[in-house]
Amino acid sequence: MRKKEVLALLNEAKNHLLNELLPFWTKRMKDEKYGGFITHFDENGKDTGEDEKSLIAQARSVYTLSSAHRAGYGTGELAELAKWGVDFMLEKMWDRENGGFYWMLDRKGNVKEKKKILYGHCFAIYCLSEYSLATGDQRGIEYAEKIFDLIQIHCTDTRFGGYFEMFENDWTLCGPGPLGGDRKTLDVHMHLMEAFTTLYECSQKELHQRKLLEDIELLMSKMLHPEFKTGIPQFFANWEIAPQIKFDIIWGWDRFTEDGEKNNATDNTCYGHNAELAWLLNHALEILGENSEKYENVFKKIFDHTVDNGIDHTYGGVFVEGPHSGGVYDREKEFWQQAEVMIGTLDAWLHFKEEKYWNAYKNIHRFVFDKVINKKVGEWYPLLTRKGKPIWTHMSHSWKINYHTVRAMIQSINRLNKISDLL
Amino acid sequence: MRKKEVLALLNEAKNHLLNELLPFWTKRMKDEKYGGFITHFDENGKDTGEDEKSLIAQARSVYTLSSAHRAGYGTGELAELAKWGVDFMLEKMWDRENGGFYWMLDRKGNVKEKKKILYGHCFAIYCLSEYSLATGDQRGIEYAEKIFDLIQIHCTDTRFGGYFEMFENDWTLCGPGPLGGDRKTLDVHMHLMEAFTTLYECSQKELHQRKLLEDIELLMSKMLHPEFKTGIPQFFANWEIAPQIKFDIIWGWDRFTEDGEKNNATDNTCYGHNAELAWLLNHALEILGENSEKYENVFKKIFDHTVDNGIDHTYGGVFVEGPHSGGVYDREKEFWQQAEVMIGTLDAWLHFKEEKYWNAYKNIHRFVFDKVINKKVGEWYPLLTRKGKPIWTHMSHSWKINYHTVRAMIQSINRLNKISDLL
Repeated sequence: MRKKEVLALLNEAKNHLLNELLPFWTKRMKDEKYGGFITHFDENGKDTGEDEKSLIAQARSVYTLSSAHRAGYGTGELAELAKWGVDFMLEKMWDRENGGFYWMLDRKGNVKEKKKILYGHCFAIYCLSEYSLATGDQRGIEYAEKIFDLIQIHCTDTRFGGYFEMFENDWTLCGPGPLGGDRKTLDVHMHLMEAFTTLYECSQKELHQRKLLEDIELLMSKMLHPEFKTGIPQFFANWEIAPQIKFDIIWGWDRFTEDGEKNNATDNTCYGHNAELAWLLNHALEILGENSEKYENVFKKIFDHTVDNGIDHTYGGVFVEGPHSGGVYDREKEFWQQAEVMIGTLDAWLHFKEEKYWNAYKNIHRFVFDKVINKKVGEWYPLLTRKGKPIWTHMSHSWKINYHTVRAMIQSINRLNKISDLL
Repeated sequence: MRKKEVLALLNEAKNHLLNELLPFWTKRMKDEKYGGFITHFDENGKDTGEDEKSLIAQARSVYTLSSAHRAGYGTGELAELAKWGVDFMLEKMWDRENGGFYWMLDRKGNVKEKKKILYGHCFAIYCLSEYSLATGDQRGIEYAEKIFDLIQIHCTDTRFGGYFEMFENDWTLCGPGPLGGDRKTLDVHMHLMEAFTTLYECSQKELHQRKLLEDIELLMSKMLHPEFKTGIPQFFANWEIAPQIKFDIIWGWDRFTEDGEKNNATDNTCYGHNAELAWLLNHALEILGENSEKYENVFKKIFDHTVDNGIDHTYGGVFVEGPHSGGVYDREKEFWQQAEVMIGTLDAWLHFKEEKYWNAYKNIHRFVFDKVINKKVGEWYPLLTRKGKPIWTHMSHSWKINYHTVRAMIQSINRLNKISDLL
């Protein structure tokens, strides 16, 4: 592993972030007419006109802009644009009667879906805390704390621990099954860790630290496979593993069978989530000032499972998912899994200094830069065949936005700098 | 069991409540000078001058007065006096900075102990909800809901379920051991059930119903002995049984060894708590409109354990505590255990119609009226020898107030009326 090789990849990443990704967004996302952000772009970067403003896409955009500003990019315009997004969220998405954010508005700011969804509120806490850390504007942390309090009041399960996830407009718990009221997911509990980490980083409050630690312990003890330490996607309230089903409220375009079940619904783990969980955990421990030693075994098992099973040595990149014990079910390539495993494999190398993690990073980096990035416009294709041919070609919609792509570049650049310094 | 016998006991109870107990309080509790209630009286009913106003004693007094008014006693003066107490609680005990009630004031209303103690907040929710139900004054339910929210934000354990109980002034969790921050108690989780029942009765909110049901499931699955269904007093956060220790913050005069441990610290169950838990559970199910069938086994085991082990057939009354498997450790007689087992044995008879429960009630009733009531003034002695000789002789202090005695009479009268109607 030569320094020159590291620097070459670093430069490629910097160039992509500064000259392609960030400009893609800054020149087309601002909705001058109705406020907030336009988040629907086709393969040519053209606004598709879809009449949606989702909590996820608005919040993730605020995160992206704030985090890029805090990382030192731009000359202030990213912070300005983040403020533009926060203004819209607080003025149009906030439910003044019940507290919390609506799930979906139209472009003008009219409410399309009032349900209160914990997944969306994770990103609201995450982005608003990052926004205050980046800009000093105290509205961010004020609302992040408000949401944290609402979550503690309405979502915790005081019987079995953890959080319920799907609520009606007034925070009444939704019904069971596809309504989601009887399930707990890895996805939400992992994004709570991410959100509480940045919340605590900003607030420094004992309460936020305590709830972050509780969530980490829960993830470790309940939501990972006891032997393989791979993530288990869905549970019933009592932590029995639940067969993975499609919920009525979605935040992605996951592939399910026609009856709403996953193939291999009870033995399924996702490489992108596993690597994301590991690096987010590592980051949480850093912010907490906790020793990561007791988690080394988890890091090693997760990173090895990801690298040993998830990497496509023939065509490059990361597969979607497979069984806990090893092997692959789904060999297509999703954009966000490439992004998260890039960061994860760099963390793995920094932790264990084993060449195989560096090779895995290089593999994915190459696949992303050669196949996933749509060079015409500078954003990533959302879904590709195993060989790297685009299947879905939109650059953005309510669930596919800038959070994974920009974060992967910012976080990879940080880590590549660290690695380069060590060589 | 003859109707005449039931009516005789009923009349004895009514007479005590109306002509002794309630007048004891109404004629001496109002602190005209500083607001709120005077709560320290000696054997002769004379104010001892102790310079304390505890959250427990103020809240329990508001409960007592409100519940007696709601049950139809008095001609409005009890509601007026309850309002006097609520005014003091909201004006002097409420922490405007951090939310929640201070644990201890002096008579003038200066703060003596700022810690936020969940046990006290259970009674605050209980009394303020009862106060709104009794009087219609919406300040009660407004503050009861505020406290509920604060508890959900600060006290829940999202890792293992249940609630932490001891907090600093700003709701930072207290340290371990005698500081109490690493323990969970039956006492608090039972009084949460009591509080959430009346809160839900008043608010009719799904959230309060949901958290009440979660607490009931927790009590049933974690806090009772799996075989005997007797209550286990103390746990660590992960529900391992903890040896019973004395906390720095106390709310009673329990007898501990000099090093702060109980004798038989890990095999100890309390008859008064067990019977209280059973009748409070029965009441909660009524308010929830839940079928009590699935709990019949718990009711039967608790009532049988209480009656088979706790009743003193030689000298009358209820012992203090004993091992889960049966037998007795402590044969003294505490006032509140008599009160709670009176209500419990009447519930047991109404449930199972077995003569032994009626006989147990009669036994305790006789002991209370012949030995426990201090006939000079009309309140109960707090602690007596097995034979019924007073050991402690004060009529009231910060932890011994009117809640058990007045409630035992109101609740027993209700049940004796029901029983008499059935005969």
